[in-house]
Parts: sequence; C-alpha cells; structure tokens
Amino acid sequence: MADATTKFTLPESDIPTHWYNVQADIEWPLDPALHPGTHQPAGPEDFAPLFPMALIGQEVSKERWIEIPDEVRDIYRLWRPTPLFRAHRLEKALGTPARIFYKYEGGSPAGSHKPNTAVAQVYYNKQEGTKRITTETGAGQWGSALAFATNQMGIKAKVYMVSASYKQKPYRKSMIETWGAEVVPSPSPDTKAGRDILAADPDSPGSLGIAISEAVEDAVMRDDTKYALGSVLNHVLMHQTIIGQEAIKQMEMADAYPDMVIGCVGGGSNFAGIAFPFVPDRLKGKKIRFIAVEPEASPSLTRGKFAYDFGDTAGMTPLMKMHTLGHTFVPNPIHAGGLRYHGMAPLVSLLVAHGLIEPRAYHQKTVFDAAVQFARTEGIIPAPEPSHAIRAAIDEALLCKESGEAKTILFHLCGHGNFDMSAYEQYFSGEMVDYAYPEEAIARAMESVPVF
Amino acid sequence: MADATTKFTLPESDIPTHWYNVQADIEWPLDPALHPGTHQPAGPEDFAPLFPMALIGQEVSKERWIEIPDEVRDIYRLWRPTPLFRAHRLEKALGTPARIFYKYEGGSPAGSHKPNTAVAQVYYNKQEGTKRITTETGAGQWGSALAFATNQMGIKAKVYMVSASYKQKPYRKSMIETWGAEVVPSPSPDTKAGRDILAADPDSPGSLGIAISEAVEDAVMRDDTKYALGSVLNHVLMHQTIIGQEAIKQMEMADAYPDMVIGCVGGGSNFAGIAFPFVPDRLKGKKIRFIAVEPEASPSLTRGKFAYDFGDTAGMTPLMKMHTLGHTFVPNPIHAGGLRYHGMAPLVSLLVAHGLIEPRAYHQKTVFDAAVQFARTEGIIPAPEPSHAIRAAIDEALLCKESGEAKTILFHLCGHGNFDMSAYEQYFSGEMVDYAYPEEAIARAMESVPVF
Repeated sequence: MADATTKFTLPESDIPTHWYNVQADIEWPLDPALHPGTHQPAGPEDFAPLFPMALIGQEVSKERWIEIPDEVRDIYRLWRPTPLFRAHRLEKALGTPARIFYKYEGGSPAGSHKPNTAVAQVYYNKQEGTKRITTETGAGQWGSALAFATNQMGIKAKVYMVSASYKQKPYRKSMIETWGAEVVPSPSPDTKAGRDILAADPDSPGSLGIAISEAVEDAVMRDDTKYALGSVLNHVLMHQTIIGQEAIKQMEMADAYPDMVIGCVGGGSNFAGIAFPFVPDRLKGKKIRFIAVEPEASPSLTRGKFAYDFGDTAGMTPLMKMHTLGHTFVPNPIHAGGLRYHGMAPLVSLLVAHGLIEPRAYHQKTVFDAAVQFARTEGIIPAPEPSHAIRAAIDEALLCKESGEAKTILFHLCGHGNFDMSAYEQYFSGEMVDYAYPEEAIARAMESVPVF
Repeated sequence: MADATTKFTLPESDIPTHWYNVQADIEWPLDPALHPGTHQPAGPEDFAPLFPMALIGQEVSKERWIEIPDEVRDIYRLWRPTPLFRAHRLEKALGTPARIFYKYEGGSPAGSHKPNTAVAQVYYNKQEGTKRITTETGAGQWGSALAFATNQMGIKAKVYMVSASYKQKPYRKSMIETWGAEVVPSPSPDTKAGRDILAADPDSPGSLGIAISEAVEDAVMRDDTKYALGSVLNHVLMHQTIIGQEAIKQMEMADAYPDMVIGCVGGGSNFAGIAFPFVPDRLKGKKIRFIAVEPEASPSLTRGKFAYDFGDTAGMTPLMKMHTLGHTFVPNPIHAGGLRYHGMAPLVSLLVAHGLIEPRAYHQKTVFDAAVQFARTEGIIPAPEPSHAIRAAIDEALLCKESGEAKTILFHLCGHGNFDMSAYEQYFSGEMVDYAYPEEAIARAMESVPVF
C-alpha cells in the first residue's frame, strides 16, 4: 500500500559501539574555549571543577571514533535502536513526489534524545568518583533525562529548573522527583547567583542562563559534585551521533540516501546527532544539505553574531566562539522551551560559518500548523522543538511538489509532545502568538557580547 | 551483567496475523447478553444500531483464530511488536530469586494498549460504511486511542469525556483534539441522558456510566453513527490478544515460561490481552496462575456479585452476566481512572467464577509505592492502572524471597504515566488517600443489580 506504515528497525546488535567525532574530519580549526577571567585558552584544569577528566578529554579529542562503554550501551538498550519511519501518509497528504523519512527518539523513558548523553555523562562521572551532579533545565526535558540517568547509575542529582517552568509545567518536575532527583525553582536561595537575582527581584521568573549560573556555582563549591550540560559542548553533541549512525543503516535498509537532513536547533545537540555522521560524505563531495531550524524567537544562527560569548547569564562559564544573541538575551516564552537559548554549539556554529549547514527560522504558529498536520497523518504527536524540523521538511516537500523533483528528505523527530499538550491547547484556542523581534531588541542584547 | 537491561524484541514479521478467541477453548458456556427491555437473549439485530456486523460476529464467534486485516496490521506496525523486558534491576533491588518479566505497551502513539482494539473497531466500521463513531472516556486513555484510530482511518469521532476528568485532565482532551476528534464534557446538553442529569444537577461531575449512556444514545439516534467500547466486550478482549501472543514468543526467546501472569483489571481487556493466549496451556494441565488485580476502590471481582447487570448508569445497554458492584456504583476518584468501572468483562468474570483467574485488590498508596520503586529501578514511569500489576508482581517476588523459590513472573505494563504525573505529585506530597468502602456502601450500590 502506498500509504502503509513503513518502519525500519535495527536489531539490538546494531546499537552503535562508538560515538562519532566530527572534529576528526573537518579541516577548519575549532577556536578554543577561553577562561572567563583571563580570556586565555582554557586548559583541562579550568574545566576540572565542572567535568570529569574523561569528558574533558572527549571535548578536545580529534579521534574519529570513541568507544561507548558497555554499561552505557546496556542502558541504551532500554529504548535503542530507535525506529526510522517513512512518512507515507504525510507525503500523500501533501501530494508531494518527495520521499520523507524521520528518525524518532521519543521512545526513551524521558521522551526525547536527551538520555543518550545523560547516561554517558553520568557514567564517566561515576567512574571518577562523583557523588552528585548539578544541572539546569528549562522546560524540563534535560532535567528529567539527567534524573533518569543518575537514578539508573545510583548518583545524586540536583536540578535548577527555570522558575516560570517550575510553576507552569509541574509534570516535568514530578517526573524528575519520581526518578529521585532534587529539583528547585531557579533563581533559588541555595546559591549566591540565585540570591543576588532574588534580592533584586523576588518574583524573578528565571532564565536558562541564570539556572546555568546556579548549577555551575553549586558544582564548583562542592568537592563531591560536578556539573552536566545537556547540549552545546562538543562531547554532548558527540554522544548524540548514535542517532545519525543508526539512521545511515536504516536509510540503507530503505534503499535511500537523503538529499537533505533536517533538525531543530537550540543548543544544537539533536541536530548534530543526526547530521554529523553524514558530514564525511559531504566532505567527500556528496550532495547532501544540512538544514538547522531555529525559532524566530531565539534566532542565534540567522540573526546572531559569530563571536566569543559566555554560556550563562552571570558570565561564570568559559567563553565559547559561537553564534550568539548576547548572553543577556531573554527569549520570549515560546512553547519550544528547549530552543530558548542565546547561544549555539561551537561545532554547529563553525559549520554554519563555513556554509556546510544552512540555518532557517520559523515563527511558532506555522510550526504548530506543521505539528498538527504531522500528528493527523503520521499519528505521533510531536514536541514543539522537533516541530520546527517538521515545518522545514514539509516546506521542502512542497517545493518538490512545485518542481516535480522526487527528493529524499530525512528529518529528526527528537521527542514526543506528551508534556506539551497545553501548547496544543493554546494553538487550538487561537490564542497562540508569534513574537516579533525588532532589530533594535536584538542589537541591544548583542551589546552584552564581550569585546576584547 | 546481572543487572543489565535485557529486552526481547521481535521482528516486524512476528506481529500476529490472527486474534486469539478464548471462547473456542473454554468448556463453560458464556451466558448470553440480554435485551435491556425484554430480558430475552439479545440477537445481532439488537446490537446492530451500535456495532458493525463484523464485530457483532466476533462477539459471539467460537472460531479459535480470526484473521487480522492487512490494513489493521499496517497501522499496528507504527508501534508493534512491543518489547518484553526482564526486570533485572527490580529483581536485584528486591533481592528475590524470582525472575520478573514485563510486556510494555506504552510505546503506542496514545501511550497504552488501547489502540490495539481502537484500530480494529474503526476498520470494521469503515468497511461497513460508518461515517462517525461515538464513545465515552474517563481519564482519557480510551478516548485518545479512538481519536488516533479514527484519524488514521479518516472517520469522524465524538468523545463524551467524564466532566470531572475533562476539567482536571485537559491534556488528554487536547490530545483527542489534536487527532481531530470532537470532545465534550459529560453530562452534556447534546443528549437526552445528559440533559436529564444536568436538569437534576447542573454541576454533575459525570461518571463513566453516564458517559456511556450519552455515547450510546448519540449512536442510536443517527444512521451514520456507531458506538465503540474500549473494554468489557468479547471482541475487544480478543483484539488485545496480540499482546499475549507476542509475549509467548518473547518468553521463548528468554528460555522461560511464566509460573504466573499478572495484569490489572478495570473492564478486563489488557488483562485478557496478555493472559488469554496462555489459557490453552492451563486447560491442558500446565501449572500457570492468572492474577487479576483491581483497586480496592472499585472491587468488582473481589467484592461484587456475579450477576446480570447493565453496562451503563441509565440502563440502556444490554444486560451482561458479570461481576458487578451495581450499575449505580460510583467509585471514589482514585488516580487509576481506567479501573473505575462497576462491572467487568463477562469472559474474565466467567474465568474467575470457575477459579481459573485469581482476583486481588489493593489500595492506591501501596500501588504507588510499587510504581515509584519500578520507575527508580527499571526507568519507565508507569501509569497508575498497570501499577496495580506491578504491586502484585513485587509481592509475589517477595514471597519467593521468603520461600527461596525462583519463580517466573510475567506482568503487563499496559501504559506509561506521562499523563498521570499529577498523581505522582500527590503521592510525593503525602496527600494521597486510600478510600475505604464499608460493606454497607457496597451493599447499597448492589441493590441496583436488577433481579428477574
């Protein structure tokens, strides 16, 4: 049947045995992270209060393949390999000659791709004696993934959750508690960074940048504690490459090769996860496009500056060369909370700067149009974040309809929308708004990008 | 590793090709459904306003195997075959010599086993020209499954959702709308049954019995409309037997055979789905126990009467011989909304009456103790309904610890808890209560069981 469900499933033995490190293959040098105080290249000792040495080593490694420990693969088996689907029903609804495939990571216990790196990060921490891990979370996807992973490995966790989300989205908070982690609204009285913000504004709704400052401070102040980040950093992106490796095998099963790979970008990790394993082919001359889709409400790749900036609001993290809107930028409260970040992964930024990745931005109403069209054809209700990728995939498929070209589109459906139904509710009620960002507002935030 | 994740995955070719009909193998006669007015055995013509003829045929069929249409298996492929896991981490935490396995149906788009029958029911309706299907839903699992299935097959649906749930659980409602179905709070002004209740009590919180009355009335009044039920009936239970058929193959892969099969029961369909395919072995003399676990707040099997009663509150449905608490029984608002039903599937009731199935009841706090222990060992956060099965599985494993027996336990994890996090929140806050049902209250409700 033309509109039959086609699922490409790999046997468990095809769970990747190695992470793929794109740094081994790109010729352009990645500018080093800089110490926040001295502005000199940061060495391993600068990162040691935050991360275990194994992860610091992965961060700067040029090795092409890094072996995945058995204990990590063992936990991956709970939900991996993940399925790849051909979107026959969506194609038919669009009337496009394009072939649309999607890789689906929503089957993990936390409902997204985030556990792929959470499990890895917790493993190396445990190996090096870490007893407790701190992190931040916005909408809660990352915080719940870290809670799941620390629980599986028997380590304590404390999650600083952006206060506005903590109040508006109690269910992710309950999920974090169910897995035994501590979760507090940020800004909190538990850190100096939090107390300073609260002193100025007792009702502060918080932000991802503030929560990062709190989690970093907590980790630095305690010997038994380290910090974990859910995206942006090289090692985090690398852990996600198991997604693309599986997708390559599954596309082969489908006897197909993508003309384009599409993913949403906030910090950049889910996009890198599906796209980076295809980069070597592109570098060898294969015609394959990489499309990174961000929200108009947080347009770091399409309207930001490629410059050194802090990862957090308080300026406690090392400086990274990346596309940034300025570390004081506070995105409007779009539903795709996982994409509300002022910066971008340095590796994604570098490949954008060199024209390998094409950035694109959408407003949220057109993104939800695509989300609902997808749910009503393919059956899975997508999270707001990957719905950005769906929007782009549909638009590319409609271009094919105009041109008559039968292109092959692969996009990443990195999570389900079970915890985002209030967003759908708002969409159906007609109350969803598209936030406009005038040039002045972007320019003002950009003034916080340090000059040196 | 002793605590490694072990997942038993079947290839897509092992999605069952037939549903298993336990009526072919049991020797005890199933008492016929009776017409609600005449109390005479109901014939196909009595059911025709509600169901398509193919499903009426399945309801009374004695054929052992009924072929699954290709179009139905095609949609099953979106999430089937479902995985079976060995609960190594839970076993280790309990320190039990027992081996615990669980079959997991939470990977479907609606998050439970319900789409297995929703897709089948919608298919036969479409074949016979039905344009629109009505149904009721309590917590929303069944309503969302039917919305998913009607959307996939291109049929309209209207869901009467118990008013209290409609207000308290807006996310299941949004899910139903996302899949394009209409959903109204019940009692509604759209039916006579609803208007009568509203006239007496404009603020009625509704009940499953009332919502069934509304959905049935709506279907009977319109030529283009039929009705769908998510559990209780023979054909619904039969559609779920693909679960047990897959589990048998997966247990063989694990080189194991269950000493007991455990599932929760509300209407009985998820329990029947995993247990019935094992019944032939038991009838041939194999020592295998079947344990059906219900809430103390709705104890039809453990404290009800095995008698003819109505399926709905208004007395519009045919009478069925089943364990019932009386069709006017209104269970307290426990979080396992899917188990809040006054009756029980006639087939499950019959096998309980003949001692083949052992019923058991638990209060909800001990059920949530088990749910949290499971989430913190196995990683998946379970829905409140299957957490009843988890409680029983843990108790049986602890008995093995005392006796030193290495029994093999198989239980059914029929859905995830993503839409039930408010229940976990209440549990952690210490505000969860166990509702007591004094004998008088049960006796009073039982007076509504008709005598003739």
